[in-house]
Amino acid sequence: MDEFRSIAALFAPLAAPEGEGLLDDAAFLPARPGHELVITKDAVVEGVHFLPGTPPDRVARKLLRVNLSDLAAKAAEPFGYLLAVAWPAGWGEAARAAFARGLAEDQAGFGIKLLGGDTVSTPGPMTASVTALGYAPEGRAVRRRGARPGDLAVVSGTVGDGWLGLEASGGRGGPAAWREELVQRYELPEPRLVLRDVLRAHASAALDVSDGLIADLGHLARASGVGVTLDLAKVPLSAGGRAWVEGQDDRGAVLETLASGGDDYELAFTIPAEAWEEVRAGAARAGVPVTAIGRVTEGEGVRVELDGAVRAPTRTGWRHG
Amino acid sequence: MDEFRSIAALFAPLAAPEGEGLLDDAAFLPARPGHELVITKDAVVEGVHFLPGTPPDRVARKLLRVNLSDLAAKAAEPFGYLLAVAWPAGWGEAARAAFARGLAEDQAGFGIKLLGGDTVSTPGPMTASVTALGYAPEGRAVRRRGARPGDLAVVSGTVGDGWLGLEASGGRGGPAAWREELVQRYELPEPRLVLRDVLRAHASAALDVSDGLIADLGHLARASGVGVTLDLAKVPLSAGGRAWVEGQDDRGAVLETLASGGDDYELAFTIPAEAWEEVRAGAARAGVPVTAIGRVTEGEGVRVELDGAVRAPTRTGWRHG
Repeated sequence: MDEFRSIAALFAPLAAPEGEGLLDDAAFLPARPGHELVITKDAVVEGVHFLPGTPPDRVARKLLRVNLSDLAAKAAEPFGYLLAVAWPAGWGEAARAAFARGLAEDQAGFGIKLLGGDTVSTPGPMTASVTALGYAPEGRAVRRRGARPGDLAVVSGTVGDGWLGLEASGGRGGPAAWREELVQRYELPEPRLVLRDVLRAHASAALDVSDGLIADLGHLARASGVGVTLDLAKVPLSAGGRAWVEGQDDRGAVLETLASGGDDYELAFTIPAEAWEEVRAGAARAGVPVTAIGRVTEGEGVRVELDGAVRAPTRTGWRHG
Repeated sequence: MDEFRSIAALFAPLAAPEGEGLLDDAAFLPARPGHELVITKDAVVEGVHFLPGTPPDRVARKLLRVNLSDLAAKAAEPFGYLLAVAWPAGWGEAARAAFARGLAEDQAGFGIKLLGGDTVSTPGPMTASVTALGYAPEGRAVRRRGARPGDLAVVSGTVGDGWLGLEASGGRGGPAAWREELVQRYELPEPRLVLRDVLRAHASAALDVSDGLIADLGHLARASGVGVTLDLAKVPLSAGGRAWVEGQDDRGAVLETLASGGDDYELAFTIPAEAWEEVRAGAARAGVPVTAIGRVTEGEGVRVELDGAVRAPTRTGWRHG
């Protein structure tokens, strides 16, 4: 199938009416005065970012979602994306159609459209990247920098489920009773777009938890020129996460592992301490619990504490490739 | 080298001061009232789009240039790009540094900056995509659609050199005396950004010649709902192209091959016939010759003529993967 026919068959139904990019050299976006455009780009490689054999619709949906998660962390409202995909011979018509079906499903769910991109062939593993675009009112997007000493560090949802889900994939590990839920969390993260208004109103800095909570708090601290003290005991765990912690001997090491696992796609952010009650209530109204997990301090780096004692993590994050 | 250190070492020097995307989850672009944002995304795979062994700086520069060529065809002024790159183990530190050096060189030449992106590893061939961004004053970007019966079809520069350059790569074919020049044309195409004002003032439709002149005129015709008659005898050839044509028996077949070869990255566009003299003069002032090669007609598809006779091309374009 050549590029034109492939686009026509698979991707044209995904295109925005204004998405001339599919049938032109480029897409055209009219200016939106008073708004910043927020743009991010993440790539995945089969065997590196997802397990061979993962259903293609899941691959597509996760690729979209990890990009939307970046926009969520910036308090931007996504509207469209460009896609580059390199198909191996092993990804035949059915797999490609399933991939497009996954995009279609999540597009509809998140209210975004395909604006353009490129499809090529590869002798290597399936490789794809999404460039996701969103808007935020001028001055209301949230950066990684901006955290101030005295701010609270907050995280949405629960932490460590991405890592447990990867462990559980293929029935290898993790708590058996929660295996399916955890694999779902790993394969199909939920970009926390519903926290947009809370972030715009209160967050001094934010990012999404993709490398692991401790590592990502480190990125936020570095960008903001501050330190962060994380209280491991406060890190919110799912029922599966709690079950897994209970089955292990060294609680500290286990919590640290969960706070170092990647692929959670929760939002970590900082807020003025006095905003806590409003943030908690606003997030609850949006349907996503948030938890205060630490403090922004003078200094640098992440200080991890448990039950009043400082730990020296040996492994601060899990990085893809 | 993990992602953060790789970004710091290789890509931070390429970043726009405002390009927080390198150290944040996303890049932030303030609204530019009165302008359309024009956005395109093209990908390359080693062994599919470039020969293994191509110097990494050349790979980087061509990847940037094919994207800038799309913006040139839309009469947009580029300002930045996002990059996703999947490094194989075989692309060590020296190759990666050379790749970044190639980006740096062309960034400076074209006045653009790196805004963000992603670097990952791959067990497969080197794969990369660029998302290039430009602006055009509202209503002045040029689409593929818009050609009207009676318009002239025009092409910039010379046609077929990309194909001859690929033939000449590795000393396999093409006219020996022009081998180096032609390989250069193939490896380092020149995006015709200098034709921006001419296009904005006069072009009814435009695209860049990447699939092959005949195929690309077909794309333009389809998007515009018109036909195009191409006079093969008028297709502009370089000295190398002319030398190669002279060495062959079947002039028609040879011209058709050159007009079907991809990777020229010239601009093909249509203009009202009465604008020809201004277009010719404007392009000459910009330093890029243009040639009238045919006519827009009612109907559909591309009609290829040579010396008054209609040809029936068996091969209308060369497509990557």
